Formats: sequence, C-alpha cells, structure tokens
Amino acid sequence: MPYPEIDDATRQQLGELARGCRILEMEGHGDMTLGHLSLRASSGNKFWMKRNRAGLGEILGPDDFVLVDWEGRQLAGTGGRHSEWPIHSEIFRARPDVQVVAHTHPFYACVFSAAAEPLQPFTVDADYFLEVPRHQDEVALITTKEEGQALARSLGTGSAVIMGNHGVTFCGTSIPHAICVGIFLEKACKAQVVGAAAGFKTSMPARAIREKRHKQIMTPVHWEHSWNYFCRKLTARFGTDTPIFGRG
Amino acid sequence: MPYPEIDDATRQQLGELARGCRILEMEGHGDMTLGHLSLRASSGNKFWMKRNRAGLGEILGPDDFVLVDWEGRQLAGTGGRHSEWPIHSEIFRARPDVQVVAHTHPFYACVFSAAAEPLQPFTVDADYFLEVPRHQDEVALITTKEEGQALARSLGTGSAVIMGNHGVTFCGTSIPHAICVGIFLEKACKAQVVGAAAGFKTSMPARAIREKRHKQIMTPVHWEHSWNYFCRKLTARFGTDTPIFGRG
Amino acid sequence: MPYPEIDDATRQQLGELARGCRILEMEGHGDMTLGHLSLRASSGNKFWMKRNRAGLGEILGPDDFVLVDWEGRQLAGTGGRHSEWPIHSEIFRARPDVQVVAHTHPFYACVFSAAAEPLQPFTVDADYFLEVPRHQDEVALITTKEEGQALARSLGTGSAVIMGNHGVTFCGTSIPHAICVGIFLEKACKAQVVGAAAGFKTSMPARAIREKRHKQIMTPVHWEHSWNYFCRKLTARFGTDTPIFGRG
Amino acid sequence: MPYPEIDDATRQQLGELARGCRILEMEGHGDMTLGHLSLRASSGNKFWMKRNRAGLGEILGPDDFVLVDWEGRQLAGTGGRHSEWPIHSEIFRARPDVQVVAHTHPFYACVFSAAAEPLQPFTVDADYFLEVPRHQDEVALITTKEEGQALARSLGTGSAVIMGNHGVTFCGTSIPHAICVGIFLEKACKAQVVGAAAGFKTSMPARAIREKRHKQIMTPVHWEHSWNYFCRKLTARFGTDTPIFGRG
Repeated sequence: MPYPEIDDATRQQLGELARGCRILEMEGHGDMTLGHLSLRASSGNKFWMKRNRAGLGEILGPDDFVLVDWEGRQLAGTGGRHSEWPIHSEIFRARPDVQVVAHTHPFYACVFSAAAEPLQPFTVDADYFLEVPRHQDEVALITTKEEGQALARSLGTGSAVIMGNHGVTFCGTSIPHAICVGIFLEKACKAQVVGAAAGFKTSMPARAIREKRHKQIMTPVHWEHSWNYFCRKLTARFGTDTPIFGRG
Repeated sequence: MPYPEIDDATRQQLGELARGCRILEMEGHGDMTLGHLSLRASSGNKFWMKRNRAGLGEILGPDDFVLVDWEGRQLAGTGGRHSEWPIHSEIFRARPDVQVVAHTHPFYACVFSAAAEPLQPFTVDADYFLEVPRHQDEVALITTKEEGQALARSLGTGSAVIMGNHGVTFCGTSIPHAICVGIFLEKACKAQVVGAAAGFKTSMPARAIREKRHKQIMTPVHWEHSWNYFCRKLTARFGTDTPIFGRG
Repeated sequence: MPYPEIDDATRQQLGELARGCRILEMEGHGDMTLGHLSLRASSGNKFWMKRNRAGLGEILGPDDFVLVDWEGRQLAGTGGRHSEWPIHSEIFRARPDVQVVAHTHPFYACVFSAAAEPLQPFTVDADYFLEVPRHQDEVALITTKEEGQALARSLGTGSAVIMGNHGVTFCGTSIPHAICVGIFLEKACKAQVVGAAAGFKTSMPARAIREKRHKQIMTPVHWEHSWNYFCRKLTARFGTDTPIFGRG
Repeated sequence: MPYPEIDDATRQQLGELARGCRILEMEGHGDMTLGHLSLRASSGNKFWMKRNRAGLGEILGPDDFVLVDWEGRQLAGTGGRHSEWPIHSEIFRARPDVQVVAHTHPFYACVFSAAAEPLQPFTVDADYFLEVPRHQDEVALITTKEEGQALARSLGTGSAVIMGNHGVTFCGTSIPHAICVGIFLEKACKAQVVGAAAGFKTSMPARAIREKRHKQIMTPVHWEHSWNYFCRKLTARFGTDTPIFGRG
C-alpha cells in the first residue's frame, strides 16, 4: 500500500478527483502528459497532486496522486511531482475557499490565450464567468513560488485565469465545481474562437443581461447536474476504470 | 407505472419524441443536460415536456417526459420540469398548427446567434428556411410567460427562431418535421460560420432561385426521408434503447 | 431476383460502384439521402443510378441501383429514381470517355461553392485539377435536360465542376478514377477553406510548378493506389457489407 | 524471410520505426499512401525506408521497409521504393547527427505551408522550435539528388522544414525524437491556423521568454515521456499489430 497514512475520506476524494481528471481529458483538456490537478489536504499546508508522466486520462485512483507541501517537498506517493507545483501551493495559500486547483491545456482556451481581448458572450458560456483575467507576467512554466504568487494575484477572487500563450488555471470549492469551471471555460473559448473567425458583425448582450444570465447559470445546482452528466457520459463511453486518450 | 392516465397513442408518440431527442443529440444539438422538446397533449392546454437533469441523448421513452399545463403546473411525471417551460406553452398558445416545440444549443447555430446578419445560402441548407428571425428582446433564460410570448412573436409564422447569444427554438407540425427543422438549421449555420470565416468573395443565388430551391427541398416527402434516414443512423450507431452522448 | 437481365460483369461492376458510394460516405461526401452515382450501361443510352431514399453509405450492392435511359425512364430496379437524373444522362451524352458520374454534397466543397474565386494550391491537392469550373447558371436542383446540358457544358472536358451554393459533380473513366476525383476535390477545398480563413499572407507556386505537380500526382497509378487504400480502410473500419453513416 | 541479412538490433529498431509510423497516422500525419519515414542503416551509406503503396498506419514491422542506398538503389526488401527517396539520402548525407528522417502531409502544417509568415507562439507548441524554415525552391515532388540537397540546405541544422504548399520534412537523433518533432510541429501549426483565423489582436511573448520556454520543453526527458504516452495511446486504441486509418 503506497499511502498507509491515507484516511478513507481522502481515498474516496482522490477517487473522485481521478474521475475529474478523466472527465477533463474527455472534454478536451488533455495534452499528452501535461496538465495537473490538486486537492487541498484535509489538514496542514499540503495538497494531493496528480503524478507526472501520465496523461489526465490515465489517472485512475488514489495511487496516481502524490502528497506535496507548500514548499514543494513530496511527502508521499510513488509517482513523480510535476515541476509546476507552485501553481497549486500559491493558490491554496492565497485562497482559503479553494479546495481544488487545475492547470491544463485545452485547445481552444490555449488558442484564445494569445488574444489581447476579453472573453465575449457569443453564447451563454462566457456568462459562467463574465470576466476571465489574463496572466501575462510569466508565460513560461511556473516553477517558482514567485511565479506561482504572481499567477495567484492574476487569478484574484475568480475561478479561472488564462495564461498568455500557454493554457489555463482554474479552481473551485469542490471537485464538481472546479471540473465544471474548466469545461465551461473551454466551451466559452471555443465559441469565441470560432465565432470571431466568422468575422460577423456581432450583437452582444448588455452588461445587465449578462449579469442576469450569470446568476441563472453559475449555480451549485447547475454544476452538480453537469458533473453528474459528465460522470454518466464517462462511464457510458469508457467504463469506470479504463485509461482514456483524447481525440487530438 | 408513472402515468396511469396515458393512452397508447400518446405513449407511442412519446417513444417517437424520445427518439427525436436522441437524434438531435447525435446531430450536434446536445449541450450537457440543457435543451428540451415538447409535444402538444392530445387534449387541453397541456404539453408533454422532456424532464430536466438529463441530456437529450438520455431520453429513452415516455417516462422521461412530464405533463405540464400552459401555466407551468406539472400534472404528471416523476422527473423535474425545466425552468424554460414558457417557451413551449407560449408557442403552443400562439400557433395552433404546431405539435412539437424544441429549444436547444447546437454549436454552430449558437455561434451564429451572435451575428447581426441574416442567414445566407452558402449551401442549399439555408433555403430550407429563406429567413430565420433573430430574437433579441430577452436573451437570458426564458422563464416567464411574457418572455415566452415575446419569443413566440419573434418566431411568427415560421418554424425556427435564433435566440441571440444563446441558442435556437424550432417547431413543427409533426415530430419528423420539427426534428428535421432543427437539424437543417444547424447545417445551414455551420455552412455559414465556416464559409464566412474563409472570407471569400462570395456569390449568392438571387431571391427567385432561392424560392425555387425552397419549394424543391422543404417538402413533407423530403423530411420523411430524412427522418427515416436519421432513425436508421441512430439504430446503426447506438441501437434503439441506449443513452447517447454527443462528441463535444 | 430484381434484375434478371443483368449480366455478371455488370453485377460485378455495380458491386464496385456500391463500394465507391460507401467510400465517398466515409470520406465526407454523405449528406443524408442526398447524392447519387451512376455507371454507363454496357450498351445503349442507359445508365445504372443509385436508388433514392438511401444514403451513399447505405448502398450495398447491385440491388441498390436502378437502370435509367437518357430520357429519364426507369427500365429496371425496384428502388426509386432521384429527380436529378439529367445530371447523369447529359454528361454521358456529352462525354463518351466518361463511365461514371457522381453528384454529392461534401461539406468543404459545398462551402467553397459559394466562393467567386478560383481553387488555389494551398496544398498539392488543388493540383490534381489545376482548375475546376464553377457552374452558376442553375443552382437549384437539376431536374430537366436543359439544366443537365448546361451543367455538362460547364464541366467541359474536365473531371469536376462546382455547382454554385449547392455541391459538386464529378466523373471519371473508371470507378476508381471517379471516386478519387471526388475525394481529392474535397481535400483541396478543405485546405483552401481552412487556409483562407487563417488570413495568412500566402505564397503560391507558379503555373509551371503547378503543371509539373499535376503530371506527377494525377496519374492512373496514383489513383489505383489510392482506391486500393480506401478499399482497405473501408473494410478495416466497417467490413464489406455494412451500411455506414458519416460523422456529420 | 525477406531480409536474411538483417540483424536483431536492426529488426528491433524497424519494429519501433513501424510503431512510429502508426503513431504519426494516429496523430494526423496520414494522407492516403503518401508520406514516408526512414532510419539510417547501422553501417554504410544506406537507409531503411518505409515501402510505398501503404499508408503510414499500415506499417506493421520490419517487412514494411526497404533498404536503399544514397544513390537510390534498392538493396533489399520486397516492397516498392517511394520516388521521393532523395529527401532521405540527402539529409542523412548532410546531417551526421540525424538517425531518422520523415516526410509527411499533416493537415494543419500543410495548410500553414502556404503561409509566407513565420510560425508564432499562439501556444507553447511553437516554442518547441522557435523557428521553422520554409523551403520554397522546389515544391513539386522531390525526386532528384539536387532537389534533395536543396531541401537539406533549407533544413539547415534544425529538426524540421516546411515545404511550401506541400508538406513537412522533419528528423531526429532517435525514433522518439523525430516522431515527437513531427507531432509537436503539427500541434503548433494547428494552433496558429485556428488562432490566426480568429483574427484576434494578439499578444506574443518576447524572444527571451520564448527561449526560456524552448529550454524548458524541448528536452530528451519530455520527448521520452511524450513518446511513451503515444505508445500507450496507440496500444489502448488499436492494439500492437493492427493497421490503423486516420479520420480524414
């Protein structure tokens, strides 16, 4: 047993987090072995982080996570630690409300990360967010505490930040919340990338309408239903314990 | 038995409507658990509406519908009622010819819904319609009778309306008619979104040619053949009683 | 037996033509039950034409074709005749070298059919053709001899013609030739639609280079190898006697 | 046994190279029977080259390669030799460090090959390369030593060269290196083609950041992990000895 110290509740949560990794892969967040998710540990300045050298879709259970403290020291787990651990430690440090942090490379959000323009409501998906900040300070890999702190500052109090010419980082108060944030962000970016390409004269809703939409759709009930939907979809397509590989 | 009051004809029709839901999912109308279809009840100011918390592709039979009256009261069915029921009640009220109403989020039509431009005949698909009105009054969720009435006014006497920065609503005199309207609309929007992106100098047919095309292709015979085709495709790919999940 | 008069050689050729229909479906030419192929009959002013009410991918063998004369009279076959039979009769009449005629709606070629611009060599695929004429006289369905003759004039001595805002018609001296022409044309149009969308400053090869490329790639050896490749692909994916349905 | 002279190490390497061919097919490099890879022979001015008349995805093992010398003479192997052998001989001649050479037609890189613009870092993928030269001297098939030499000059000391309006040639110091170069290049081109289409005002990282990214990501450790990932993906999707056919 790789983690004798792991309690049942943590083991159950890491099973859910593994499912979240595979759902992200299914929904277009996979990019070879790149990308990682983490869960705040139940006590202390530590978090469970997806191991490296495996794709998001290959994460099957608790053994695919390693325990890392906020200084980057690996405390448990037989897998390796991704070099971008400061993304996670610094967001957990800055945001006590956050339980789950993720950094991924979904295709359309990555393309959109090169845009010096705000996210626009081509469809309702952008109104899951209203705004998503763009982090431009450091767009190479985030491998130091200072770089992680700068990213956490760009994230601010929101749930997602676009990393210029690189990818996205997002977070949530629960596993379903964080996973849905990531999926909704990629949907919104896809709509804008494809819509902007069409070059249409566009019509966008006013701010007041956008805020109304935001209140209607970004609710715990909606992300619970959506999470449940993605769990059923994952099981129907791939079963519950099979590695999956994106279509890229 | 959840609906003791349901007659055999209704049960058979709801089975067909469920098939229509899955065909829409297969053809790109699915968006998580969002989107809904309804069938006018055989008597009274009521309609059968897809239950909430399930995707279009998860609708398998009569038990996946709930009976709702034109005031939004749920009369039968164990599932929940989507909050956007006034889309259905108000179109049934305004349009005695309509038997089936649908609201969905097909990707290309949703992107096109941000365009302040008319649908153009890049391909013949736009000529299933000639024009499709764009509803701009209220582009948040449609949750009140007034909002539903405004949408019904925008629909007018046609079979489809684009809801700005949101999605589409479409309807028909039969299940095959309504389903084909939805599929044809998404095809037309996809052609325009991709075609407009290319930025070509374009050549479009004159109005008289478009009207000739409309008469040639938007016929009961064509949508019957198309509906039969989609039924065969659904069965060949997924069988007759399996939930399906779009590729998004 | 539906065709007692059919000889073994014809039966064998119609089996190949059926395979060609399914290969076209696999390669993106399918559009519900629309589209049709034909083979010049071994004697007389007649041709075997795909029956209607079935998709290209549902054509499995000789029984899926009907025998039609150049006046549009159905001489044999239990299926129905597509209304656009004059496309076939008039090209067979005008072009004694042609053995196979096809009219389909491949997505990118259909989008490109709205462009008032020539096909350009973004990739080598356009140099299978050098030029493809665009037929603009009549872009509704082709249902009369006069309309078919006008289309045959636009085709001229080439192997393909783009029908404005509608689709493509292509032909060949053999089944492999015609099928490859159709596939190569869709590839070329896809490259141009996607490439033009990018809006790059482009660099295109000079005419002399294009002609050299044309001679290198549009050869009987190449389309024989390509046809054999598509036959292997079809069998590997779908077997030899199964209806297939495009991904649209 | 077709190659009595083949030693065990070569046989093992050709098995790996065959796997590389199938991985390239899986990742979008396949184009009918076009495209070819080669491995420098362990001694002498010779190389093992994929046989012709088969797609990249149909290359299953050592018997699918032919031994060719730098004058284009086929020394062993029962398959046919692609006419573009001088791509391989002249790069092996000019670049003693190179062990593997490939020429393919991946869709987005082919589209990008028409662009008279440099590769830009919409995402990190372009920084696997920083620059990729564009070969414009001869963009028909490369069938002579002079044409091969000109291409080798355009390649210079890099790992990839874009062949204008045609495709790409890439190489590496090992099979995993070369295959990853090809995959990373197609990813970078896809990001740019789709990103440029959106027409966004863009923000690109400065050269110093790009060089930092290049050092972080273009490492033997990363391409080893990526190669291992693609091997697992290939096996999970298609097994270890099955021909595969791209989705084109």
